[in-house]
Amino acid sequence: MAPVLLLLLIPHFPLHAEEGMWTFNNFPSAQVRKEHGFAPSAQWLDRVRLSSVRLATGCSASFVSPDGLVLTNHHCAATCIQQLSTAAKDYSADGFQASAAGDELRCPEEEVNILTSITDVTARLAAKTAALTDKAANEARKAETALIEKECSTSESVRCEVVPLYGGGVYDLYQYQRYQDVRLVFAPEKSIAFFGGDPDNFMFPRYDLDMSLLRVYDKGQPLKTPHHFTFSPSGAKEGELTFVTGHPGSTNRLDTMAMLETDRDLVKPTVLFHLSEYRGLLAQFQTRGEEQRRVSEDDLFGIENSIKAYKGEFQALLEPSLIGQKRAAERDFQNRVNARPEWKKLYGGVWASIESAQRRFRQLYVPHKYLEAGYGFRSDLYRHARRLVRMAAEYPKPNGERLEEYADARKPEMAQITTSKAPIYPELEIETLTFSLTKLREALGADDPAVRQLFGKRAPREIATDAVTGSRLGDASVRKALMEGGQAAVAASGDSMIALAKLVDPVARKLRKQWEDEVESVLVSGQEKLAKARFAVYGKSIYPDATFTLRLSYGAVKGWMENGTAVPPFTILGGTFERATGRFPYALPESWLKSQPEMNLSTPFNMATTNDIIGGNSGSPMINRDAQLVGLIFDGNIHSLGGSYGFDPKLNRAVAVDSRAILETLDKVYGARRILEELKPAGAR
Amino acid sequence: MAPVLLLLLIPHFPLHAEEGMWTFNNFPSAQVRKEHGFAPSAQWLDRVRLSSVRLATGCSASFVSPDGLVLTNHHCAATCIQQLSTAAKDYSADGFQASAAGDELRCPEEEVNILTSITDVTARLAAKTAALTDKAANEARKAETALIEKECSTSESVRCEVVPLYGGGVYDLYQYQRYQDVRLVFAPEKSIAFFGGDPDNFMFPRYDLDMSLLRVYDKGQPLKTPHHFTFSPSGAKEGELTFVTGHPGSTNRLDTMAMLETDRDLVKPTVLFHLSEYRGLLAQFQTRGEEQRRVSEDDLFGIENSIKAYKGEFQALLEPSLIGQKRAAERDFQNRVNARPEWKKLYGGVWASIESAQRRFRQLYVPHKYLEAGYGFRSDLYRHARRLVRMAAEYPKPNGERLEEYADARKPEMAQITTSKAPIYPELEIETLTFSLTKLREALGADDPAVRQLFGKRAPREIATDAVTGSRLGDASVRKALMEGGQAAVAASGDSMIALAKLVDPVARKLRKQWEDEVESVLVSGQEKLAKARFAVYGKSIYPDATFTLRLSYGAVKGWMENGTAVPPFTILGGTFERATGRFPYALPESWLKSQPEMNLSTPFNMATTNDIIGGNSGSPMINRDAQLVGLIFDGNIHSLGGSYGFDPKLNRAVAVDSRAILETLDKVYGARRILEELKPAGAR
Repeated sequence: MAPVLLLLLIPHFPLHAEEGMWTFNNFPSAQVRKEHGFAPSAQWLDRVRLSSVRLATGCSASFVSPDGLVLTNHHCAATCIQQLSTAAKDYSADGFQASAAGDELRCPEEEVNILTSITDVTARLAAKTAALTDKAANEARKAETALIEKECSTSESVRCEVVPLYGGGVYDLYQYQRYQDVRLVFAPEKSIAFFGGDPDNFMFPRYDLDMSLLRVYDKGQPLKTPHHFTFSPSGAKEGELTFVTGHPGSTNRLDTMAMLETDRDLVKPTVLFHLSEYRGLLAQFQTRGEEQRRVSEDDLFGIENSIKAYKGEFQALLEPSLIGQKRAAERDFQNRVNARPEWKKLYGGVWASIESAQRRFRQLYVPHKYLEAGYGFRSDLYRHARRLVRMAAEYPKPNGERLEEYADARKPEMAQITTSKAPIYPELEIETLTFSLTKLREALGADDPAVRQLFGKRAPREIATDAVTGSRLGDASVRKALMEGGQAAVAASGDSMIALAKLVDPVARKLRKQWEDEVESVLVSGQEKLAKARFAVYGKSIYPDATFTLRLSYGAVKGWMENGTAVPPFTILGGTFERATGRFPYALPESWLKSQPEMNLSTPFNMATTNDIIGGNSGSPMINRDAQLVGLIFDGNIHSLGGSYGFDPKLNRAVAVDSRAILETLDKVYGARRILEELKPAGAR
Repeated sequence: MAPVLLLLLIPHFPLHAEEGMWTFNNFPSAQVRKEHGFAPSAQWLDRVRLSSVRLATGCSASFVSPDGLVLTNHHCAATCIQQLSTAAKDYSADGFQASAAGDELRCPEEEVNILTSITDVTARLAAKTAALTDKAANEARKAETALIEKECSTSESVRCEVVPLYGGGVYDLYQYQRYQDVRLVFAPEKSIAFFGGDPDNFMFPRYDLDMSLLRVYDKGQPLKTPHHFTFSPSGAKEGELTFVTGHPGSTNRLDTMAMLETDRDLVKPTVLFHLSEYRGLLAQFQTRGEEQRRVSEDDLFGIENSIKAYKGEFQALLEPSLIGQKRAAERDFQNRVNARPEWKKLYGGVWASIESAQRRFRQLYVPHKYLEAGYGFRSDLYRHARRLVRMAAEYPKPNGERLEEYADARKPEMAQITTSKAPIYPELEIETLTFSLTKLREALGADDPAVRQLFGKRAPREIATDAVTGSRLGDASVRKALMEGGQAAVAASGDSMIALAKLVDPVARKLRKQWEDEVESVLVSGQEKLAKARFAVYGKSIYPDATFTLRLSYGAVKGWMENGTAVPPFTILGGTFERATGRFPYALPESWLKSQPEMNLSTPFNMATTNDIIGGNSGSPMINRDAQLVGLIFDGNIHSLGGSYGFDPKLNRAVAVDSRAILETLDKVYGARRILEELKPAGAR
């Protein structure tokens, strides 16, 4: 990890050059001008923001035509692609191309968000929480948040989220236009989208066409999108200034030492032990047959990707230089706070308070993770059942008193997922639920009261098999009826998975309440204070930790030195054929092998830049100073994995598909005339 | 973990009461007398030593009749039991009882060792290594060790091992009588031997009949064993003094902080990530069918047991109180060394030297683990192939220049395993080898030169399938012929697994050489110095870290306080039926359900004592002051898992099968008249 992370840990200027996931309303234009001789104007920023797209399922994207065409990664559309596939027609293996608008296929669970406004609601929330205990403040904050979001969501096509920035120093209300009719337009074969597979994931040099195209529909018609990016015909050069506009998911750069230590000693090992075992299970499940491989592929990819990312973060937390510098930075911060009596009085106790919450965190984390946060119940049917049970219980309550994900403003997401037509595979469900129940028993112990209550004399496989085979929740219409039937329907349901969810619910709710009252509330209140202290000590010209909201980062096309050897910033299409072995994950699709003679093999394929990104940025457009698309973010290099905790400009690199490779392969490999025509700038069509 | 570990970390008297895995030639009799009013005499110690048995495969045991009958755990015989089973006859599921001597079945790979003498060879080794560099000293030490062991092993029935004690402050030559004809006499069903399975492993209260009986044969006849233990008719009472004589495998109580940190930050996570994934694979492999479950059962048990143990150790290393006390103890030790100029000169630099070896350790550990230490090649066929390739290469060399496991003194073990008739299961082999090759590529990276050389364009499954299906090494006679044919035969072999082993061997040897020269040699030399410094500072009345050699621990029957609740030291047979659910791993065998009415359900079943034990002690007899058998060690409680690093008398407990439960169930459940007759004391028969 970085030898010189110190500056970012005391976040004040100068930050590292090119560090930062900036909000659009606090972009360091002066700094960019100083470094690169160019600064985005307000109009530039507005245009870029409105051309940026969030995929609610956890990715970034952008509009690339006036007719709602959306460019994102293949791995961001992979769930949709698998959900649309069948044993007979596997779009993941074979790729997909809609030859006409009518052939575009609707993704069962996708949602597109376009950021329309940001409003500061800090004062409004503060008025509701002032002078309350942490626990009471947490409840009041949630109630007021539900109210604000409800007021803002004037229709189902408006999505509103109150976002705590800087750990809660600022609360902003993000309003989005919401579209749930999102259709698959184009995807290459996964073998080239994810060429190199898990071994090459987070590696560079790289050769991946990790792209897909979706289209947003509104009232059955392609959405008109006057704001969109056009492709740069010439791509970006080494050293050229690049911007990335997207939705980094989460970082922990402002965490206190006590929080980092919990992450290192408890969270990362717990998660990695669990996921590693689950990965072994899925890999072996895939050997049952081709259909089993197909239906578990997306899940296995997600798990492997998480494992690699978490391992990188775990490594970063073990790096003495990083921890040492974090500790020094914290001490500096504390010293500055304690040096002024008024600051000391307001903020001096915050570190101890966060540390005490960590002790409770350590006690509750594992049971909470297993019983409430999903680790004990890996099953789509179970997730449906739980949602139905909770909707039935929550919707009759006043909006501000519900579990937050059941607030009125969230109903459209809940309805979409509940009625999703995505297929569910009982054979896989039984295995994953058996596994997770076994791990639940292991994690809590066979004699834990909750375990005894849930298991009785039954074995994990027995519970899982009964619950899966006795459930009709695989049928979307059954779920729809239960959702619409509400409390009475759910109470009357004899569905076996509903029964399991009902059995678990009281235990899970109790833990969630403990978690929220004794951990979350103290942490939120502590982080709010910490943010205020940071503003007081270091000023406001800093960027907040990532929150899966729109951010802009700037950087340049640039390689790095790896153990004394220079890694150049570009690969070319021709390198793919050299790396290919003909065997998974280095097997090229037939289409590429056939088209090789026609392709311009010197076309830049993947590229590395110094943009500061993280998970959630997948699918982000990379643009030049003219806001033309020059690349498509799909990964970071191995050094980027410590990016949760800090940015190292020497080594941390974003990895993108070069825009030129997209155009070249759409043309030469996929013959995608309809798409290429649509991608042309208005004047050229 | 222990709040008061400090004293043991500076190992001088007073240690904690009952702490210590003592060598028979340095037993703290005076201390035991002070604490318990009884001290073993020299004759007592000799008798106990000669009645103690080591199972070379990694367990402890004892003679319990004059005719070579050996008592050990079921889990110590589990590999043998599985190797003797077939799809048609599963002794693991059904249990085994030889109704006559002629029905006793030979274990393909078991070996019994009886300690006959201990000779100090410290001076002899020191003379060969004095004034050499660490690397040269390491080579000279290995050469002289090979010579000493060869001189000592006057026949194939004598096994000799030079054992470094106190990290090398003392080198003792352990001479054993060796017996390779070991036969299975009795085993209960695994469902009661390992009742509660992985969930209850390392837990207490407990209900396991984790016992088996073997018999040592010599020249085709039962071995005469005048030295053996007889069963106490009355067992042990709460508070009663108990001794455990057995072979604790390894502890790290004398490790420096730098070594512990490597263990915590690198070794434990690496091992646990790997094993967790492997566990998931095996668990899922078992769902392929009953036969697949059967053939992978022993492997899965071993992995799960290791995971639980390592997780406990990892937890201990993360415990701030333990690490803080270790650090304080190290500082105290350093201060005392540095306070005397002559000590400072001799030993003052040793911590820094060990720390610098840790840096190289961290670089080489993963490749060494995967390429040389087995993680990359999980396959019995591969292990056979590698041994054959290396025997062919090593045996022609002078004894002192070989890889140490191929020294002349080790040939009997090598021959036994090479010609073992234990079955090998190609279907399982393909899966485990595919997995481990995949992990090898992941751990080293697809572009690592060794990986490129080994894999070429081939995929892990392809390499594994080709190597397994093209190999005839599953046939013991083929291996015997290759072993006897030596270099020429192996060179001429077209066997696919031999070919893989040949491909790997140069890379693996290179890494091993680096490891030995740059890590091991520095650590061995450093630990020798550390041991001398410890003797100088704290005296010689201490016990060495465990080395899988015979040790005696003393303690008492005693429960403990768990979160304010008293855990009593005994369970009874009746409790088993209450805990049973009828479902794995809480399903009782038919034999128990049928015999319940006849059993005395108040018979003590499992018991907890304060004896200081660790892995390797499995199967150790627990005896009273009259050297009568009162129990059979099979586990420790959850708090014992930190025992690698220190002993906490408040919480750390050994767990044993009560001798009375053994007698009661042999009688009432298994009707084992022949065995019960043989177990009677001479006078009673």
